[in-house]
Amino acid sequence: MPKDDTDKLFQSTMNHKLDRLLDRMKCNSTRFLGYPCNQNFDYSQLFEFLNYSINNVGDPFLPTSFGLNTHDIECEVINEFATLCQDTRKLTWGYVTNGGTEGNMYGFYLARELYPQGMVYYSEDTHYSVAKILRLLKSRSIMIKSQSNGEIDYDDLYETIKIHRDSPPIIIANIGTTMKGAVDDLQQINRILTELALPDHYIHADAALSGMILPFVDEPQPFGFDAGIDSISISGHKMIGSPIPCGIVLAKKANVERIARSIEYIGTLDTTLSGSRNGLSPLFLWSAINQIKRAGFIKIISHCLKVADYAISAFKKIGVSAWRNKNSNTVIFPRPSDELISQWQLAVHNDIAHIITMPHVEEAFIDTFISDYQRDTSNADSKKGVA
Amino acid sequence: MPKDDTDKLFQSTMNHKLDRLLDRMKCNSTRFLGYPCNQNFDYSQLFEFLNYSINNVGDPFLPTSFGLNTHDIECEVINEFATLCQDTRKLTWGYVTNGGTEGNMYGFYLARELYPQGMVYYSEDTHYSVAKILRLLKSRSIMIKSQSNGEIDYDDLYETIKIHRDSPPIIIANIGTTMKGAVDDLQQINRILTELALPDHYIHADAALSGMILPFVDEPQPFGFDAGIDSISISGHKMIGSPIPCGIVLAKKANVERIARSIEYIGTLDTTLSGSRNGLSPLFLWSAINQIKRAGFIKIISHCLKVADYAISAFKKIGVSAWRNKNSNTVIFPRPSDELISQWQLAVHNDIAHIITMPHVEEAFIDTFISDYQRDTSNADSKKGVA
Repeated sequence: MPKDDTDKLFQSTMNHKLDRLLDRMKCNSTRFLGYPCNQNFDYSQLFEFLNYSINNVGDPFLPTSFGLNTHDIECEVINEFATLCQDTRKLTWGYVTNGGTEGNMYGFYLARELYPQGMVYYSEDTHYSVAKILRLLKSRSIMIKSQSNGEIDYDDLYETIKIHRDSPPIIIANIGTTMKGAVDDLQQINRILTELALPDHYIHADAALSGMILPFVDEPQPFGFDAGIDSISISGHKMIGSPIPCGIVLAKKANVERIARSIEYIGTLDTTLSGSRNGLSPLFLWSAINQIKRAGFIKIISHCLKVADYAISAFKKIGVSAWRNKNSNTVIFPRPSDELISQWQLAVHNDIAHIITMPHVEEAFIDTFISDYQRDTSNADSKKGVA
Repeated sequence: MPKDDTDKLFQSTMNHKLDRLLDRMKCNSTRFLGYPCNQNFDYSQLFEFLNYSINNVGDPFLPTSFGLNTHDIECEVINEFATLCQDTRKLTWGYVTNGGTEGNMYGFYLARELYPQGMVYYSEDTHYSVAKILRLLKSRSIMIKSQSNGEIDYDDLYETIKIHRDSPPIIIANIGTTMKGAVDDLQQINRILTELALPDHYIHADAALSGMILPFVDEPQPFGFDAGIDSISISGHKMIGSPIPCGIVLAKKANVERIARSIEYIGTLDTTLSGSRNGLSPLFLWSAINQIKRAGFIKIISHCLKVADYAISAFKKIGVSAWRNKNSNTVIFPRPSDELISQWQLAVHNDIAHIITMPHVEEAFIDTFISDYQRDTSNADSKKGVA
């Protein structure tokens, strides 16, 4: 076959493969209930930026000789999130990360540098990446029991810190746990630290999903800098939605500067964990924030919580007990068959499963799911009957 | 003003801002000489994938319940790079990273887990992110002197390892240093390890740029698994080009499995550093690799090296001594004024600067730059004359 024909054949095979992949995306996105990723977004206005090798290398607030960056846009995004996190005294610094792992790693890295002898406390319901990060950082840590709703067990936390009072406590507060959307109570955590006379402590908030819920509800649980946190990680691809997983991390400037100084000593002032960083995620977040605005997010969150309640009622109608935590769009119910889990891309843990009513989830979506769930459980029951 | 009008005004302000940003990108990309990011790419065929919240969460080679992924494409990319890195016995595993920092961090993390008492050796010319990573990992380390061409000083390496023979050596081999494009000689490094009878050792190759050069030249320096490395990090946004910084990391399966097991013990099998990972970078790399193919890369690399030689000749014509290392497209010359550095986005270090003749750099591009450089240095000379 002449070379041109081989090339054409090859190109056509490649196109065919891409078409099938796109079909799979279309199909999978219509049955996307188990993970907290909003599928409702349209960034097509920004696609032209994908023709450039944009790189937000290093600290967004410092000048760089790499001109192809969106640092100014990134700074606007960071300032917006600082406001959402009640940084009323403009005491924080931050950057747009590649996602939750980087945001949490940054928080724990800062904490470890401030308190090298610190002991990290995190609940059983903490995201699995935290254990990986602590191992990477060689941080000493203790897992604390959770309550049945997913919140940290404050009695266990109190008793455990009490027998390690010689080590400054570094506490991860889950602002919306992964499986149950539970919010750890910062007032209780602060009470424990005060009662045990531990002014040297660090609180990092993992607010992956709920960091973009609580600022827009009527009665939010405390979660921001006004509630005593030292750093916070919030995902961008969850409630806002993005084709690239991303997030923001915010930390107190004074702490960051201590780390930055150390890095300067070893020859650089790069204050971000990743050196090269993509300049598109800040652009997507900026455009979403500016188009949706506060009023829009209030509507979106209210819709999500309404659909979550609708799902709980629908479960009740078929005799299944489902529930959610306050201000959470994560609905927990008994684990179905592996077939249904795969079909609806559900996240599961032991005997429970959840759906998360993100903005793309409408009531009709729930109806189809509940009907599949009912069929699934009756099948399982009849199989048990046969056995 | 009615709400609709406010919205329109706001939208128009936003559009105006985006237009100006895009103009800046266009303008900056025409004077982009100092960083190793290829500006020649066109992924517009893939833009439709940006309408989905794709997430390559966790290990690309394992199934996941998150259906919106491009894991199969990612595995093809990894296998392709494994072949380029002479993994003839299919002994490696890998994934697409967010860039060099993550790739190097993964390599050093594996090394530390294998040899907790290991000592890391890295040359003065090593990328600045390595010191940050070693600090994060709490790894013991010693900086080794460099030769004037940027290669590690083998005598200093030998003598330093010799006095620490009780600690397994973990060595970073620079396959193309950041400032001078120098390649550390793996044969020399292996000779030192043999002479000092140190069978327990680990070599991580930082091949950010040259990992995509050496497989396509006639007389490559050794750099792959056949030359004794244990892991390697190669950037995707450098020679291949990508709007999202990315890279690949490859490591020996047997070592990865040791870490994976530990993570399984703590409740998860996620073998990647970042949990959520974007599914677009693998798609971009896959499409470039399949369209350009081996023959295409041979042509591109040959072009880059030819333009580098052209630049050296052009410098010579204006009486400036410039040079490059073997198989490197990094051209080193005396540092110009800060104004020129900023104008051409040059990377500098002490009294040297470099340009990197990436695929988008043509001879005419060099001509304009050399003429600016000549004007810049004569200005500096005349200022000195006045002073």
